[in-house]
This record gives sequence, structure tokens and C-alpha cells, in this order.
Amino acid sequence: MWLRSDNTAGVDPQVLAALAACNEGDMPGYGDDEHSRRLDGEFGALFEHDVRVFPVVSGTAANALSLSHLAGPLGLVACHEDAHPLRNEAGATGFFSGGAGFLPVSGAHGRMDVTALTAALDGLAGGSHGALRAAAVTVTQLTEAGTAYDLPTLRAIGVVARERSLPLHMDGARFANAMAALRASPADVTWRSGVDVLSFGGTKNGTMSCDAVVFFDPARADLFEQRLKRGGHLLSKSRFMAAQLLACIASGRWLANASHANAMAREVADTVERVDGGALLHPVDGNIVFAALPEPAIDKLGAAGIALRGKGRLADGRRTFRLVASFATAASEIARFRAALAG
Amino acid sequence: MWLRSDNTAGVDPQVLAALAACNEGDMPGYGDDEHSRRLDGEFGALFEHDVRVFPVVSGTAANALSLSHLAGPLGLVACHEDAHPLRNEAGATGFFSGGAGFLPVSGAHGRMDVTALTAALDGLAGGSHGALRAAAVTVTQLTEAGTAYDLPTLRAIGVVARERSLPLHMDGARFANAMAALRASPADVTWRSGVDVLSFGGTKNGTMSCDAVVFFDPARADLFEQRLKRGGHLLSKSRFMAAQLLACIASGRWLANASHANAMAREVADTVERVDGGALLHPVDGNIVFAALPEPAIDKLGAAGIALRGKGRLADGRRTFRLVASFATAASEIARFRAALAG
Amino acid sequence: MWLRSDNTAGVDPQVLAALAACNEGDMPGYGDDEHSRRLDGEFGALFEHDVRVFPVVSGTAANALSLSHLAGPLGLVACHEDAHPLRNEAGATGFFSGGAGFLPVSGAHGRMDVTALTAALDGLAGGSHGALRAAAVTVTQLTEAGTAYDLPTLRAIGVVARERSLPLHMDGARFANAMAALRASPADVTWRSGVDVLSFGGTKNGTMSCDAVVFFDPARADLFEQRLKRGGHLLSKSRFMAAQLLACIASGRWLANASHANAMAREVADTVERVDGGALLHPVDGNIVFAALPEPAIDKLGAAGIALRGKGRLADGRRTFRLVASFATAASEIARFRAALAG
Amino acid sequence: MWLRSDNTAGVDPQVLAALAACNEGDMPGYGDDEHSRRLDGEFGALFEHDVRVFPVVSGTAANALSLSHLAGPLGLVACHEDAHPLRNEAGATGFFSGGAGFLPVSGAHGRMDVTALTAALDGLAGGSHGALRAAAVTVTQLTEAGTAYDLPTLRAIGVVARERSLPLHMDGARFANAMAALRASPADVTWRSGVDVLSFGGTKNGTMSCDAVVFFDPARADLFEQRLKRGGHLLSKSRFMAAQLLACIASGRWLANASHANAMAREVADTVERVDGGALLHPVDGNIVFAALPEPAIDKLGAAGIALRGKGRLADGRRTFRLVASFATAASEIARFRAALAG
Repeated sequence: MWLRSDNTAGVDPQVLAALAACNEGDMPGYGDDEHSRRLDGEFGALFEHDVRVFPVVSGTAANALSLSHLAGPLGLVACHEDAHPLRNEAGATGFFSGGAGFLPVSGAHGRMDVTALTAALDGLAGGSHGALRAAAVTVTQLTEAGTAYDLPTLRAIGVVARERSLPLHMDGARFANAMAALRASPADVTWRSGVDVLSFGGTKNGTMSCDAVVFFDPARADLFEQRLKRGGHLLSKSRFMAAQLLACIASGRWLANASHANAMAREVADTVERVDGGALLHPVDGNIVFAALPEPAIDKLGAAGIALRGKGRLADGRRTFRLVASFATAASEIARFRAALAG
Repeated sequence: MWLRSDNTAGVDPQVLAALAACNEGDMPGYGDDEHSRRLDGEFGALFEHDVRVFPVVSGTAANALSLSHLAGPLGLVACHEDAHPLRNEAGATGFFSGGAGFLPVSGAHGRMDVTALTAALDGLAGGSHGALRAAAVTVTQLTEAGTAYDLPTLRAIGVVARERSLPLHMDGARFANAMAALRASPADVTWRSGVDVLSFGGTKNGTMSCDAVVFFDPARADLFEQRLKRGGHLLSKSRFMAAQLLACIASGRWLANASHANAMAREVADTVERVDGGALLHPVDGNIVFAALPEPAIDKLGAAGIALRGKGRLADGRRTFRLVASFATAASEIARFRAALAG
Repeated sequence: MWLRSDNTAGVDPQVLAALAACNEGDMPGYGDDEHSRRLDGEFGALFEHDVRVFPVVSGTAANALSLSHLAGPLGLVACHEDAHPLRNEAGATGFFSGGAGFLPVSGAHGRMDVTALTAALDGLAGGSHGALRAAAVTVTQLTEAGTAYDLPTLRAIGVVARERSLPLHMDGARFANAMAALRASPADVTWRSGVDVLSFGGTKNGTMSCDAVVFFDPARADLFEQRLKRGGHLLSKSRFMAAQLLACIASGRWLANASHANAMAREVADTVERVDGGALLHPVDGNIVFAALPEPAIDKLGAAGIALRGKGRLADGRRTFRLVASFATAASEIARFRAALAG
Repeated sequence: MWLRSDNTAGVDPQVLAALAACNEGDMPGYGDDEHSRRLDGEFGALFEHDVRVFPVVSGTAANALSLSHLAGPLGLVACHEDAHPLRNEAGATGFFSGGAGFLPVSGAHGRMDVTALTAALDGLAGGSHGALRAAAVTVTQLTEAGTAYDLPTLRAIGVVARERSLPLHMDGARFANAMAALRASPADVTWRSGVDVLSFGGTKNGTMSCDAVVFFDPARADLFEQRLKRGGHLLSKSRFMAAQLLACIASGRWLANASHANAMAREVADTVERVDGGALLHPVDGNIVFAALPEPAIDKLGAAGIALRGKGRLADGRRTFRLVASFATAASEIARFRAALAG
């Protein structure tokens, strides 16, 4: 299916080259190799802050390990009602934490509504005996709806969290795509907005299977390595994880990749909007397009051999789709899409 | 430190080439790519049995996920008292299972004694109310002492397990090294001896961070994918895991790599035995040498710039060491060791 | 607050007498005493079926231990969206199971809609890689809305569960109140309708803190004692739990108690309906009344010193209340309520 | 079997009377009743310290809930190698904590050796990547060998714990028996010796099934009620738990009961020592006697209808037994034992 995900692409050639380049010779494992030892410094420079960085092999691992670390077993994680950790990770956060739950918060276009968040948190306050309490807040940046949180909203959430002494986590599986959309620095979008821990996505942006958990307060990372080990996520040949992340952020490659994906998505969105009866279901801030298309358009695409991943159907009968561009999406692919619909 | 581990090496060039070779184009993820879809067939041919194969990123993940799957939350896993899942995995099996424990069994040179195993299992039978019961047995092949279980012992353990309806798991982090030591087929050493599930080691034998869980009864793998997902171990870009495993077993590369490592260890062992006061603490069946050396020998090594990873000290004062050869250990390294001791 | 719960009462005098009566002399513990050994037989006679009965000290323990036993760590428990295990047990089922989740199903007046249940279960079928599957169904009898499932609905749910090989659990914290409302036998309302495991409520019906888990398939109870032990729920002085349950079911005491509570609730309901602007939010099948009352009625109650436990407010401004009668509710209390509202 | 346990007795009549006495009328549940609200004050007076007291229904619940609260999921609990939480609670502490393990420490007669404890804790310091760290220490008072820790030893352990910022837990399933043995106040044996949390045993000393967790730092009890609720251990009819504990400590009843049990055990011990070939395996400080008896003595007992609970056999062939006296053990029972052996 066409543009069905940003994890169907291979690996950025620069990342592949980095794997080969670090293959020579013996090195200690488990994070003691020369590449791993550079991670905190390089990410610290990128984020203009002291950080502790832990590579992990999946976004689920990044989210579940960090949220369980923040929330503990007896807490609730406030999140958007469509948040990936709540909906799509097979209960990983509850599992890794030993029982943490979620406090779902509504909000348009995938973004938690700050008022709804406040109400949900305050609603817990008068809980009965033994009722769970909030223990963390998580935002997804890009959201599951493909939108970015702007800085004022992010900061407002940061204030809500801080006032209640709740750590703020950011699920940045598509952090690069959000960054490419915002006129802001990595520092602005994270710790300056109150973010304490970031799931930094690499896999959807060109690494092999390599994301990272970034702690903006190194002290908070205490015992995190034990979580990794117990979860089977502490890799012996750590150099190959570190090398990918370093290649990713070197010379802004991560942003260039994301910018390309965003631009491709933008063209898809523009094309959809020009279709008679075509519409976007959410603003397109990054690399994901939620589109409604009428049957004739779908037929045209079909005739051109382009099958889309269906999501559902609007009340008026139009079908809806989720299209995701990646760093590897070729402009020619978009042109083919445009041509098919124009045909 | 010299020969301190078999996970300090890089990646087998053939594995690295396979990563590059599978990088082209879009592919579905999560095991639906063309490489992943070949895994069951290729491993099935290798093991002469229907199998289900799940790539994982670490030996801890392989062991903890499969043992938790076999033992459930309320069972005990019988294992050698020095077994890696009991001693060195930060409680991962207990964690992933939601509470399974271990039933430690003694035995010389890292191998469970069949009589001790039987006694330990039978000793549980008259347990008090609420006492845990045995739910699985695991053997390590190569053992933690660097020895291989011979087929008769393995089969005897298989019989003990089968008589009690206990599934038998094999921790094969160094399965290749054991295979290179035994005159037997992969089938002989696994399902023909009663093994139900194998942690197939790749990382110590040339993959990047890629082992596999092999189920010899595909029906038993039901819900295992859910375990992977919840554990953050279901990788989107699954092609790169599958490609490594396929490269590993293609044309017997895995055995060739292990044979080389074993041969290097053999030479280390022979050298140690020729040292005045040198001794082997365990038989050297694979790529691990447990050696005792007297101070003069250690001084000679030190003078040649060779530091060894100390384990302890014998009653007579000699120090003990654990030396591990890998697929990448060069013959010149061994020559240097020999020369230093001869000097 | 007036009629605020059915767990604010003390203990049925007959139950208290049973505690004193069994206090003499030494007896084995952990279920081996003479009273505990009678449980399976007495409950088996009551339910006309072979059963295994395990006393527990709370409804949360009964539900969480039995649901975790049925669903395992990787399953979803289908339940009404207001079900107590989902909403009010602090994540106990997820915790005891090591990760099971819930599949919430809608339905009027606290009863799962059979069509909605079917749709929810079928909607999981085409789940993506690693998505959780349904593993059990639970119904609450009396429901959280104070209604009883009639036999045809219960059987229809039983069929849905059986067709998918899902065990059916019944949360019977107020099973006695449901039984007192239905013209049916305990067998009809449980195993003849497809129920596999019952949380049999005692505490809300006159025991001290003593419910029971009843397995209608004794084989399914294997390892349940281990769950109790690990959960700190295997009591040494088991005689006192068994004696309570036996006193409860002896000579139909449990039904008499529940009938009384239901009758008191019926009178409350009738009184509410006669109030100008008074209304019932749910049918009153058992001992719980969800009532809406206008301000003047609330003022009259206040003047008589009767404060009600508020639940919320209707769109038209009337406030809503949850009133629960128990075995110990005196007719004079209801008369006082009636008199206050008539005043 | 004769004197086989201190949980085969019934309930202290004074405790039973307290249950009846608190049965009148409606009371709030979940700890808000008038009896529960007195617990902190009454225990505070007993211990001369601010405390938070949580009744629980079993010693396993008391230990597992408090140790999991103290150690968290990633820690090790240092304990004697025969400690009940490690050996006899079906993995409850690991389960409730979500993965905590134990660090077994040796020591004669059930008491942790302070030097061994120090060595075990220090041995963890240089742990490898991802290795677990100590997170708590627990002592059993009376120990599993029936001995009491004297104050100097207890204080030394307290210092070891405090120096490493490890909370100190005391498993006081037989705390009363230890107190009856020591010339010290409850304060001396707990917080003045560095104990942070106490599992206060009631069940073995006359309650129905009612122990308590006592926090000497109330702030540390934060979220403990949530643990109880999730574990199914927050009881609605809380008055009956509180009333038992209050009856227990009122007018020193708990100490009187324990003193009686200790005296009975002392007589058993004296009798054993007078038997030809009889011996005590451990000092008898409380209500437990570990005895070795030669066959002729066993035969005499058998002839008098006294069967003992066997533990094992000494190298010289004598059999060993564990005999436990309780508050309800009659002097006539001991006389019968003495007469049988004298016969």
C-alpha cells in the first residue's frame, strides 16, 4: 500500500555507513564503547542541556520504559485519549511499571486540551480510598493526528504538570518531523517547555531500529539502566546503536530527513485538497496526512495501481486514509499520485 | 582486557553485507517483510522440523520472553545454579512472567546433574499450601562453565522434563559453539533431545544484536508476538533482524564462526596447560577458557601488555581467569599470548 | 450519610455466632480445617454442581484473582464500561494478571449489550501485530446500576463467550441481591447460563470481610491456591472464613438477608417515585436505588437530618443520588425517609 | 500433630469479644470508622512515636506489601538466607514489587551476621551494567530459628542500613514473642534501633487473621493505601480489623499472650534437654523449639499419642522437630509431653 507508514523504508545510507565505519576492532559493550560514551555530550550540545541518553530498539520500549520510570506502579499517566502508549503498545507501560494506568484527556486534532487536562487532573484529587493518583503527563510530538503542539500550548501543559509536581514526558517518535515544522530549537520544544524526558525517535527517520530515551535531569536516570537490563533492552554491542544516533544528529541529518518527509506530505496534502471532494481531516504539520477522498478519486488511484491504507468512512460516504511520508519517499512517488488523481 | 568477552567483537562482514543488501526499497514491517517470512522455512530446514522463529535483540530478551511464556507467573524454572537467567539477567524472567521463580540445581562444570534435577523436582511435590511448582526446565548449551552437554545427558534431562510434562528450554547464547563441539545435528541437540524452545544466539557469533527464539512446536508460539510487542521487542524494521539471521545460517557461516572461536579457545587452553602451574578449571568444549595461572605467568603476560579479566583466586594462591574467544579472534592474538608466556 | 453503602453495616448476628462457635480448640490452617473442608460440598449442593470454593477477604480480591487466573497476562477482559474491576479496583486485575487489560462494552442500565459485546469482540479479530486478544468476559450481577441481568440475556452472553472459547466470569458482589430478584436457581444464574467462575459476595450481605471465588470447573482452579498465597490471601486461620460462608448459606440466610435489603430498596424507590419531580435513573432490581430528586425534596430531607450521597446533577437541575439498602437496614429508617419527604 | 504451629489455635476470647462489641450500628468503611481512626494514636502511644498503622489479613501481605513499598521494582532486599519472605511466601515480595529480588545473608541461628550483611551489600557495589542494587534490609524478630535479635545486634544492623540509606524492615510475625523475651521497650526494638517499618504480627498471637504494617515515618506511607487497594487488601468493614488490634494491645494483652507462649516453649525446651540424647538446635528465646530427639524418646511420645512435626535428621541419626507454643497452649499439654518422655 502506498505511503502506508514511515517504518517501511530502509535505513538512511549515512546511518548504514556509520554502522560499517564502527565495525572495526574490539570494543567494550553495554555502553562503555567510545561511540556510546559520546552520546550524552553530543545530545547535550543539541539540546543545550545536560542529558543522559539511552538507546533503545523501539518506540514502545522508549515510551514504556521511560513512562514506567516516571510514573511508578501506582500512578496514572495523563495523555491524549488517542495516545500511542494508551492505544497501540499492548499495555507495555502498565506492564513495565507493574500497574500504572492512564488518564485519557480529550482534545482536537490529537492535541490534549489544556483545560481538559486540568479538569482531569483536578477530578482525581477528591478520589476515594485507594484511588490512583496522577503521576506523569505525556504529550506526543508530532501527535497521533499528525499535528504539532505549538510552543505556547506545550508550555501551558508544562506549567500544569509542574504545578502538580508531575514529570512531563514527550513521545517524540516523530520528534524530528515536529522540529522541522516548528520555528524553535530542540531546547525550546523540550526542557524549556517543561519536558523532563523525551522518547527521541530515530527509526521512523532513518535508523535501523534505534530510538533513544533522553533525560534532561541526569539524576532522574538513576536505575534506568537496570530497567533496560531487566527488559532485555541493554545491548551488548552498544556501539552500533550509538553510531546510528550519532550519524543521525551529525550535520543536522535528522532534520534534513524530516524536512524532506514533511515536504512530501505537504505535497500529498495539497494534492488531496485540490481533488473534488477531497479534504484533510487534520492540519498537516509533519509527515502524516489524514485525507478523505470520494470514490471517483479512489478509482483513479486504483487504475494507476495506487492502493491506500483505509481508516474508515465519513458520514457522507467518503472514505478516509492515513498517508505517511518518510525520509525515503521519492518526489516521483508524489508526482505519480498527483498524476493519477489529475487523470 | 585480553579476550574478555565474545561480545566485544564487531559484526561478521557477511552479516554487515546482508544488512546493506536488504536496505533497498519499501517493505512491510513487523515481520511481514520478505526476509522475515523466510525465517521459519530456513530455520525449519536447518533443524529438520516445523519451527516458529522470532528475532530478538538480546540473549536476556530471548531467555526471559521464552521462559516467561513457558513457565507462566506461578511456576519455577529448574536450572543450573549458575544459569545466566538466574544469576545475570536482573530478574528478567521473573519480571516478564509476572512472578516465576527458579529452582536451582547443582552439577559439576556448569551442567545440571540429572539426579540432582530429579531430586529437586521431586522435592517440590509434597509442597505445602500455596508453594510454587516446577513449570519448566532450562539448560544452557554451552554452559556457563564453557562445557557442552553431551547428547546422552541432554536426552536424560529431556526425559525427566517430559515425564513431568515440563517444557524444556535451551539457552543457546553459545549454541553455535556447542554445535561446533558436538558430533551431532541441530535436530539431535534440540528437539530430538526433548528441547521445546531454543534461545538461538547470534550476537556472540557475529550478528549486530540479533538472537532468536525458536519454537519447535509452532502452536506453543501462540501469543508470543503479543509478549514481544508488550516488551518493546517487536521491531518495525524487521527485515534487518531477519537478514542477519539468514546470513548467519546461510552456507554454515554460524558453524564456521563458532568453530574458529572454539579453535582459538583450544589453543589458549593448550597454552595454559603447558604453563608451569597453569590449569584449566573446566573442560574447554567451546570458546570459553577458565584458567588458573600462577603469578610469574601473570607477570609475563603483563610485561607483554596482556591484561586478563580476573575471576578470583584458588586456595593455593593462583589467580583465575575467564577468557573468551570469538569469531573475530585472530590467530596472531593467540600467538602473542603463547609467546608472552613462553618468554 | 443515609443509606450510603451496604458495607457500612456490621455483621449478621448469625455469622458472628458462627465465628464464636468455631473458636474452640486447635485446627489445621490454610484450608485444612473441618469447616473449610465442607465448603466445596455445601456450595456444590447450593449450586447443584461440582465446585471449588476459595474464601477471600474482599470483592477486589475475588475479582482480580479470578479474572487474572482466567485471562492471563496477555488478554483483554470484556466487561461493561462501568464495571467495578475496570473503574474501581485501582488496576487490581491488570496487576494480578501481569498486564491483562479491559475491553469496555456499552449497554443501558449497567448491562452489557449483547450486540455491542459481539461487535467489540469481533472488532479485535483483525488486530495488528502484537495487538491483545480477548481472553475472558465478565458480567456484574447485580450490575453497577443496580439492575439484574435476566436469564435470556445472561445466556446470550454465555453463548457469545462459549463460541469464542472465552471463560465467563460473574462479579457477584451482590449475587444474593440478584438471586432474590430473579425467579431462578443459583445454578440457572451461573453455570447453566455459561458462567465458569463466580465472585460470590458475602461482605455486603452480612459477613465480616468474607467473599468467595467459586469455580464451576474444579480443574480450572489448578494453581489458584498459589495465586492466593502470593497475593497474601491464603489465610492461616481459615476456619473463620469458612464458618462465615457456611453460616451465610445455611438455611437460606444469604437469600433472606438479600430479600430484606431488596425490599427496603423497593420502598425507597416507591417513595422517590411518589415525590413530585422524583425519578429513578435505573430500574431497581435489587438493593440499590439511583434517584433524582428536586431541591425541595432535598430540603425536606435535610430538615429531617437525612443527608444523601450525591452522585451528580441532571440537565434539568435535579440532583442525583445512589442509595443502598443492606440486610441491616431497618424498616423504621425507610419510614423516616418517607415521613421526611411527605412532610 | 503436637504443637505444630502457633496458627492452629483459635482466637483470644478478648479479641472475639471485641468483634462482638464493635458490631452495633452503621459505620463508614475503608478505615474511616471510629476504631480504625484510633489505631495510629494507640500504636503511637505503644511505640512512643508518630506512626501510621495499616491492618492486613496475613503476614505474607504485611511483608510483601511493605517490602515492595520500600524496595521498589529494581532493588534487592537483604535478608537472612532463611527469611520467610525469601523462602515461604511464594514470591509475594517479588510479585507485589514488580521484580524486587533478595540478597541472602548467612548467620547462625537465624540471625543475619552483621559482617556478612556488610560484605554482601558492599559486594554489590562494583556490580556490572544493569546489576540490581540493594534497596532495603529486613530482619525477622523472632527469627525463623526461634531466636531473638538482641539490641546491640539490631542496632548494628540499623547502622549498616542507615549508612547506605537503606530502609530497615522488621518482619515481626512473632514480634510479641520477641518483646516478651527482651528487656526493652517496643520503641527500643524498632525505631530506636533503626527500624523504619514493622510487620506487626497478630494472627499467631490471638487475632483472627489480622496483622498490621506500622510505618515509623508517616510520610513513607504515602501511596500505601493504593497498594492495599490494588492488592485486594483494603477491607470495607475495617472496624473489625481495627477492633482486633486495639483489643490486642489494650492492657498489654499481646505481651501476656506471648509471655505465656514463651513460657510453654521454655518448658518444652527444658524437657527436651533432660532427655537422654535430646538437644536443642537453636537457643529458645521465644515460642519455638527446634529439638533433636533419639528414637527411644520418639517412641515414648508415640506411645502416649504425641506425634511431632518432623524437620529432618541429624548426621548421628537423631530426628529433628519444630515445636511451636501459642497463647492457647495449655500447661497440661506440656505436662503430658513431659510425662510421656519420663515414662
